[in-house]
Amino acid sequence: MILKIINPNTSSSMTRNIGLTAQQVAASGTKVISTNPDSGPLSIESLTDEAISVVGVLEEIKKGENEKVDAYIIACFGDPGLYPSRELTKAPVIGIAEAAFHLATLVATNFTIVTTLQRTCHIAERLLQLYGFENQCKNIRATDIPVLDLLDDDAKFYDMLLTECQLAKDEDKTGAIVLGCGGMSGFTKQLQEELQMPVIDGVTAAVKLAESIVNLGLYTSKRGTYEYPPKKIFTGSFKHFSS
Amino acid sequence: MILKIINPNTSSSMTRNIGLTAQQVAASGTKVISTNPDSGPLSIESLTDEAISVVGVLEEIKKGENEKVDAYIIACFGDPGLYPSRELTKAPVIGIAEAAFHLATLVATNFTIVTTLQRTCHIAERLLQLYGFENQCKNIRATDIPVLDLLDDDAKFYDMLLTECQLAKDEDKTGAIVLGCGGMSGFTKQLQEELQMPVIDGVTAAVKLAESIVNLGLYTSKRGTYEYPPKKIFTGSFKHFSS
Amino acid sequence: MILKIINPNTSSSMTRNIGLTAQQVAASGTKVISTNPDSGPLSIESLTDEAISVVGVLEEIKKGENEKVDAYIIACFGDPGLYPSRELTKAPVIGIAEAAFHLATLVATNFTIVTTLQRTCHIAERLLQLYGFENQCKNIRATDIPVLDLLDDDAKFYDMLLTECQLAKDEDKTGAIVLGCGGMSGFTKQLQEELQMPVIDGVTAAVKLAESIVNLGLYTSKRGTYEYPPKKIFTGSFKHFSS
Amino acid sequence: MILKIINPNTSSSMTRNIGLTAQQVAASGTKVISTNPDSGPLSIESLTDEAISVVGVLEEIKKGENEKVDAYIIACFGDPGLYPSRELTKAPVIGIAEAAFHLATLVATNFTIVTTLQRTCHIAERLLQLYGFENQCKNIRATDIPVLDLLDDDAKFYDMLLTECQLAKDEDKTGAIVLGCGGMSGFTKQLQEELQMPVIDGVTAAVKLAESIVNLGLYTSKRGTYEYPPKKIFTGSFKHFSS
Amino acid sequence: MILKIINPNTSSSMTRNIGLTAQQVAASGTKVISTNPDSGPLSIESLTDEAISVVGVLEEIKKGENEKVDAYIIACFGDPGLYPSRELTKAPVIGIAEAAFHLATLVATNFTIVTTLQRTCHIAERLLQLYGFENQCKNIRATDIPVLDLLDDDAKFYDMLLTECQLAKDEDKTGAIVLGCGGMSGFTKQLQEELQMPVIDGVTAAVKLAESIVNLGLYTSKRGTYEYPPKKIFTGSFKHFSS
Amino acid sequence: MILKIINPNTSSSMTRNIGLTAQQVAASGTKVISTNPDSGPLSIESLTDEAISVVGVLEEIKKGENEKVDAYIIACFGDPGLYPSRELTKAPVIGIAEAAFHLATLVATNFTIVTTLQRTCHIAERLLQLYGFENQCKNIRATDIPVLDLLDDDAKFYDMLLTECQLAKDEDKTGAIVLGCGGMSGFTKQLQEELQMPVIDGVTAAVKLAESIVNLGLYTSKRGTYEYPPKKIFTGSFKHFSS
Repeated sequence: MILKIINPNTSSSMTRNIGLTAQQVAASGTKVISTNPDSGPLSIESLTDEAISVVGVLEEIKKGENEKVDAYIIACFGDPGLYPSRELTKAPVIGIAEAAFHLATLVATNFTIVTTLQRTCHIAERLLQLYGFENQCKNIRATDIPVLDLLDDDAKFYDMLLTECQLAKDEDKTGAIVLGCGGMSGFTKQLQEELQMPVIDGVTAAVKLAESIVNLGLYTSKRGTYEYPPKKIFTGSFKHFSS
Repeated sequence: MILKIINPNTSSSMTRNIGLTAQQVAASGTKVISTNPDSGPLSIESLTDEAISVVGVLEEIKKGENEKVDAYIIACFGDPGLYPSRELTKAPVIGIAEAAFHLATLVATNFTIVTTLQRTCHIAERLLQLYGFENQCKNIRATDIPVLDLLDDDAKFYDMLLTECQLAKDEDKTGAIVLGCGGMSGFTKQLQEELQMPVIDGVTAAVKLAESIVNLGLYTSKRGTYEYPPKKIFTGSFKHFSS
Repeated sequence: MILKIINPNTSSSMTRNIGLTAQQVAASGTKVISTNPDSGPLSIESLTDEAISVVGVLEEIKKGENEKVDAYIIACFGDPGLYPSRELTKAPVIGIAEAAFHLATLVATNFTIVTTLQRTCHIAERLLQLYGFENQCKNIRATDIPVLDLLDDDAKFYDMLLTECQLAKDEDKTGAIVLGCGGMSGFTKQLQEELQMPVIDGVTAAVKLAESIVNLGLYTSKRGTYEYPPKKIFTGSFKHFSS
Repeated sequence: MILKIINPNTSSSMTRNIGLTAQQVAASGTKVISTNPDSGPLSIESLTDEAISVVGVLEEIKKGENEKVDAYIIACFGDPGLYPSRELTKAPVIGIAEAAFHLATLVATNFTIVTTLQRTCHIAERLLQLYGFENQCKNIRATDIPVLDLLDDDAKFYDMLLTECQLAKDEDKTGAIVLGCGGMSGFTKQLQEELQMPVIDGVTAAVKLAESIVNLGLYTSKRGTYEYPPKKIFTGSFKHFSS
Repeated sequence: MILKIINPNTSSSMTRNIGLTAQQVAASGTKVISTNPDSGPLSIESLTDEAISVVGVLEEIKKGENEKVDAYIIACFGDPGLYPSRELTKAPVIGIAEAAFHLATLVATNFTIVTTLQRTCHIAERLLQLYGFENQCKNIRATDIPVLDLLDDDAKFYDMLLTECQLAKDEDKTGAIVLGCGGMSGFTKQLQEELQMPVIDGVTAAVKLAESIVNLGLYTSKRGTYEYPPKKIFTGSFKHFSS
Repeated sequence: MILKIINPNTSSSMTRNIGLTAQQVAASGTKVISTNPDSGPLSIESLTDEAISVVGVLEEIKKGENEKVDAYIIACFGDPGLYPSRELTKAPVIGIAEAAFHLATLVATNFTIVTTLQRTCHIAERLLQLYGFENQCKNIRATDIPVLDLLDDDAKFYDMLLTECQLAKDEDKTGAIVLGCGGMSGFTKQLQEELQMPVIDGVTAAVKLAESIVNLGLYTSKRGTYEYPPKKIFTGSFKHFSS
């Protein structure tokens, strides 16, 4: 089974990290391909960054259709391009935010999201509302760590994360932590150990959900919303999207 | 990994069927134990049946704690005893209704539940509300097939199911079908083939979700609601629940 | 009119207290029978306690059908077994949590629940959601008084309750207090006097609601969800539930 | 105990009917006073009728404060003036719509409202939303019987009501009927008999709820929203409202 | 185009202020008439004040129908009489609370209301719920400035307002301020300048929305809820409302 | 005042039509610029089309910042790129779907959307949920007219639209019609005339809302979500988005 993990930003070191994290939990029969678009933002910290990144995500999905990909993961916590991606393929497409939310509600009655910048909290709020997890989320906490700084493997950032998680535990009286950035995956185990409560990382959660769906013979429904798009002419720099 | 599937009713032939279905999708390293309580209703078709069945479910969980069980599945569509079960163990406990809902929303924007008796539709409604899937469920359709009749492997029942699924497809314009009874598992593949859309069975969905959670090193949170119960004296026929 | 009050735990002193409280507000023509199952938890402080207690509640309802009972009250704040109980009888069945919520919203725009252990707050949250009172509840406050300690008639516990109620008044700016445990009934009057705001106890509220429904000639609907259960074989220690 | 029932319209024959209905269910110690304002609409069939009727309701409450009234009922299905009335008195004030909704949810999992004119359905919708009963209401059905025609005691109107109730039973699969107009009270018993399901009339429901609240020593909270209004000068024809 | 602004209280100096504020933003072709009823409360600070004021509002609408009015504004933050007013005319009728909410959501993802008395916060809560803006409102803050004191043009009141707006900015992390009283209109510009964030006043917002609707040839729908009221006899002091 | 209307698809004839419609309702001092990106889908009929179109929308906003634009309109019914656009400018940005919803709720208690393809209905559902208009929308009806066919000015398409609007009027008993595609603007007046109820077109609604916001001195809040994006490197074909 081929699992293609798309990092929507263009930071190849983050792509590598995400791929390594994914590989560690993937089943023995799963071949993990991690990739990122050539064109797009180096990190995703605004609605604009996110919107632009969607083009690259869709291109990676289209490429994937010739690569015999069995399932896709979109590895940015805003799940950019999740819905349109599902139009382009019958393979399952899983966002790391939704993956984390789903598993969190199976192990705790509620959870707190610990994310990067304050300004991105609203993106998480919208996802919770769209997906139906509003009641289960106790709080969204920002650490104000810039996304790419998470690659530095600096103890300082781990400490900032830990501090906010402790507040989630003590003040929110939350049942589980959801890490709100693909770049935080590497800290999951250590945080869970130190906090003594479930800490959910979307990347690894998405790997297992994608494998689950493929193994069950399920696939993205082509009835209704996720039907393949109608034939369409695209102009200019998007000409290659024409069908 | 030991996966214990608890059929909350006392029909051993249904337990066997559910166990076989589960085994078919389980990973090679997963040992599936399917069981049912000695005491309880022969099938679950009312709120009373469901309420009584919970005692047996909890007893099976308690037994499981001495059996080195890694994850539990409650294999009745009302998810009876799901929340109290999570108090009694750190292992994940997955209900087949919640499992089906979670996977359905990952492959379609909405789904229709096709279940047994009309009177049980309200149970499903309450679960959707508690879990946060109200907006994603298009309709709940009753076939009025009694639960145990599903064991008869009678083509008549398959046809009744198929008819209702077709209505879900055409009238509800739904994106996926969720089968609303553990006893329907055997029909999943054939229905999916014939309907040409995702058909989700909670038993197999729960197997993969339980494996996913165990593989990720996650566990039922012991913070807040699912904390182990305080020491307690039980009297009379429930004396063995004392701690 | 015969009003049967079922204390779902097996503490007979609590049963007696609840019965006395109920008798004080019952109409002259109402005969109050207070009882508790022989088998079950001595107090209800977890989801497991609650789930096991339901069996005893249902047995008391079934016995009640031969005792010419006109209405039932389930006197534990989680309303354990409320819905299945309504299947077993045409008489009204009232839970003390729902009773308190209903009356609270008739005398104030919002209310705060003051309950026993922190871990039970989530039970109240789920009831508010199921019953439709989420918007009217300002807060749920735990005193962390163990349920049976409330029987001690210790001034210390009254003071702990009062302290939390004062916080509800001052910090939540709440309009009314709902007492979140049947064992708190005895404190209601004194608290209301001292706080100068409505304090609602579910036991007495349920008595008046049950009388109201009986006096109006209303009864539990046998259309849909609360229809009598279909004939069913129960096995083992639950054989007596067979019909 | 003095119970003042305010019919917000100025039809004295409807006032008399409502009073008789109320008296039939009132406890022996309850003195029912039924009244209507001198000024206002002869019946309430629009938002304008309702808005104007509120002035008379508030005047009746103010008069009631000198009449040693223990509880008030507002006997029009839109509950006109319910919230401001609660500012003017510490006695409980119950609207017949809210009363019917509360009792309906205690005897059935859901209900259908059968009312007069189509155009008033939206009033009921807003009340359901404000009170938190949106999920429990299956449908709102209009008979298009003008309010005052209900006084004619004409078999034709009973038949029109019955027809709509039957549709509620068969098509909505509803658990209980709520009658959506004070003028329908007289038909309650006969409908319940013929339909074999609970039929709830707000007038009698409100009588029992008002008695319940008074008997429990509860009262309208003077904390927050229902605090007595601040001193105020009213001018012109409303000068008498000055304080 | 004639725009009639109805101040529902009887303070003519407030009416004058509101009229001036409105005139400043009105288009050159818009003739602003500001008026208030002769009868009613001098200011609106309770549900009772609000309820009584509705009569005067409706009378002003009825008069307006002979004055060739093209659009109406109800200039009190509780939008008193908004829905019945819409029955009486085909011209648009805009409440200043709804106007402010609509525009706030077009310039920010959320807003905080800063209003007068604590006791009126619940009025705003109900409006947010009825209109569908619950999720967008971060907080409702009371300054406890009496309504008529706002006319004093006293620096003290500006400072009290500013203080609360600063808290909204810093503690609520809100995106915009909605001023919760028609009497605050005069402070809008200065507050926006000092806070460096959008401050929305309902009076001016309503002027532009009313003009927009008229210019687009839209009008109050006479289908359903806002249909003209049926013919009706009114008695006593409301005889003039008969049709 | 310069108002830039961005048609997110690349059909210049649709851009021209939209510009003409907008100009007809714009104030005399408003200069309307209508434009479309060079690159992108020729029409927007899928989530993919919509996602790709966002890049062009954002480029037009960035260009607009050098063109002294006072307000922007995004003229496609899915409001593509609305939220990120608001990050890039302090000028108001209005989507035609939100504009239509806002005005519809000011003239009717509910509305029905009549749109193009069935598959796009879900886009409208998500917008209603995000914006808070779920309760006010009675129905979403698809005509299954392809977007570009609307340019043909063919009586057949008008008739198809009219038919669906009539069903909205008769079956949904809706209060107003919202046209669900920028390409339908030209039919608004005729439909409103023939249906005798308000018909709202988002393009013209957005023009008036944008003018309103500018005239009131309001602007997109730079507090929180819509803050300018942080400095960022974009790579490849999106290099020009770097800041």
